[in-house]
Amino acid sequence: MGNLLTILPDLVGTFAFAISGIKLASGKQVDWLGAYIIGLATAIGGGTIRDLLLGVTPFWMLDSRYFITTGAALLATLVFKEKLFRWSNTLFLFDTIGLGLVTIVGITKSLDAGFPFWVCIVMGAITGSIGGVIRDILLNEVPLLLQKDIYALACIIGGVVYFVCLYFGLSTGLTEIIAASVVILVRVLAVQFHIHLPILRALQSNVKENIKK
Amino acid sequence: MGNLLTILPDLVGTFAFAISGIKLASGKQVDWLGAYIIGLATAIGGGTIRDLLLGVTPFWMLDSRYFITTGAALLATLVFKEKLFRWSNTLFLFDTIGLGLVTIVGITKSLDAGFPFWVCIVMGAITGSIGGVIRDILLNEVPLLLQKDIYALACIIGGVVYFVCLYFGLSTGLTEIIAASVVILVRVLAVQFHIHLPILRALQSNVKENIKK
Amino acid sequence: MGNLLTILPDLVGTFAFAISGIKLASGKQVDWLGAYIIGLATAIGGGTIRDLLLGVTPFWMLDSRYFITTGAALLATLVFKEKLFRWSNTLFLFDTIGLGLVTIVGITKSLDAGFPFWVCIVMGAITGSIGGVIRDILLNEVPLLLQKDIYALACIIGGVVYFVCLYFGLSTGLTEIIAASVVILVRVLAVQFHIHLPILRALQSNVKENIKK
Repeated sequence: MGNLLTILPDLVGTFAFAISGIKLASGKQVDWLGAYIIGLATAIGGGTIRDLLLGVTPFWMLDSRYFITTGAALLATLVFKEKLFRWSNTLFLFDTIGLGLVTIVGITKSLDAGFPFWVCIVMGAITGSIGGVIRDILLNEVPLLLQKDIYALACIIGGVVYFVCLYFGLSTGLTEIIAASVVILVRVLAVQFHIHLPILRALQSNVKENIKK
Repeated sequence: MGNLLTILPDLVGTFAFAISGIKLASGKQVDWLGAYIIGLATAIGGGTIRDLLLGVTPFWMLDSRYFITTGAALLATLVFKEKLFRWSNTLFLFDTIGLGLVTIVGITKSLDAGFPFWVCIVMGAITGSIGGVIRDILLNEVPLLLQKDIYALACIIGGVVYFVCLYFGLSTGLTEIIAASVVILVRVLAVQFHIHLPILRALQSNVKENIKK
Repeated sequence: MGNLLTILPDLVGTFAFAISGIKLASGKQVDWLGAYIIGLATAIGGGTIRDLLLGVTPFWMLDSRYFITTGAALLATLVFKEKLFRWSNTLFLFDTIGLGLVTIVGITKSLDAGFPFWVCIVMGAITGSIGGVIRDILLNEVPLLLQKDIYALACIIGGVVYFVCLYFGLSTGLTEIIAASVVILVRVLAVQFHIHLPILRALQSNVKENIKK
């Protein structure tokens, strides 16, 4: 039971990320197994890269529930179809809560492995973001992450808040709740108010090169 | 000599996979070294990802024959050109035998590393499939794997059969031969009779979003 | 101070590679954080893959200067804009010097890890080349590496020269300087005189298949 409480955040994130992968895969001539693979890559990709960088066995190789949860996400998509996406606000919130939770998982795991604070913040962002990058690469699109950075930026801001809380002596539990909330809040506010970072505009020399081609 | 018998399946798979990579690269303005790199990535990509996940040194860093075999595949393509592909049935069979063999290599290596059966099945599929995914990503195409899943599905079915055989007490040698044959048979039958999994159809909400863009 | 002298080549390579990533990202609707991520992936991607293959902790997780240097590259791009690219010859030389330096870093690190000479040569080429491949994949383009191989080929030739020098008993310091110079020279000459490897021409069977589609 205690175990379930520990792993629940992770599974909520897995389900939400898998749904986002399967949704993007639909309509791209991908079959059911392909959709499952895309869902899986989105859900476990970030954590897998994190674990490889940390030098530990990838988390999903030690617990079959991640694969089962992704299967449940595919089943839900096949059964509910469009109905699932009518609740698009619910799904967005769900995905964002998932983002907040897995970012914290990434930070604490890196902290346990003995890395300095800035590596932990990067690992939190990798855990939250890279799954979506792998999804976009597999579907042959320019990663959304590079264009709508509030995703990665929310993870980074949450990570900074995490270490500010620790610095001021807050308990680990409270720190985790605050940091996850900040990730969620930043992303919700950014989407609500269309906040985004400035775009890197085309450099003249680049434009000319393109014309020459 | 015994060593050669152990490694032969692996090298046959390497050669077949390298040819498939080089073939797809041809006509894409890729030069000889680029073709070699594509062939290499196709041939050793899956096993490399498997070894990184298992936490062991990638197999090709311990044995130069994989690089040499890929070189032989490039040479064969440059010398025989179209003639090589006139025997397209032979090449297909060759590639499929390679798939069966490397899937078993992936399963046994994961079993030796102490992982549970379902991780071993996944590793067998990764060993057989991911090289082709890397090839398609490098050539900027949506991975065939996601659309013609019988490739990955054949690995998975072969993996399940492997553990069913072990469960019923068959010897390791017999188990390996049966499982490899199942992988090969499933793929040959699937291609012969145009069997494929259902496609995940476009979800309405996704279609609308595309129109809006 | 001694430490700075050791790490300086690495940081020069990081800065040059980051600039090349950010330059390619400009004009692709990528925002500032996205540009930073592309710059970072270009700069540290090759060394990260090398370290994962060698089974050691990725270098940038042990030293924050790589992230800071990439930040400086983004800042330089934002401040100087096109002016930065007017000196395109300077930039090319800079990038090429970076290539020479990181290739040697890749070789010596693999040698220290106890791998045979041909693995070290491959690791040198991976360190120098894979960052650019990751950059191109993220920006959804066919990797330049596959088409303008003199990049990777320069690393390989430099690597061979490295071990020829060692074989003839030259000191490590001299060997490193000669090998890095060869990498730089090969690339400069190849670009200057438009030298490139032959292209793998389209195989007839491939053409027919394309028409059928």
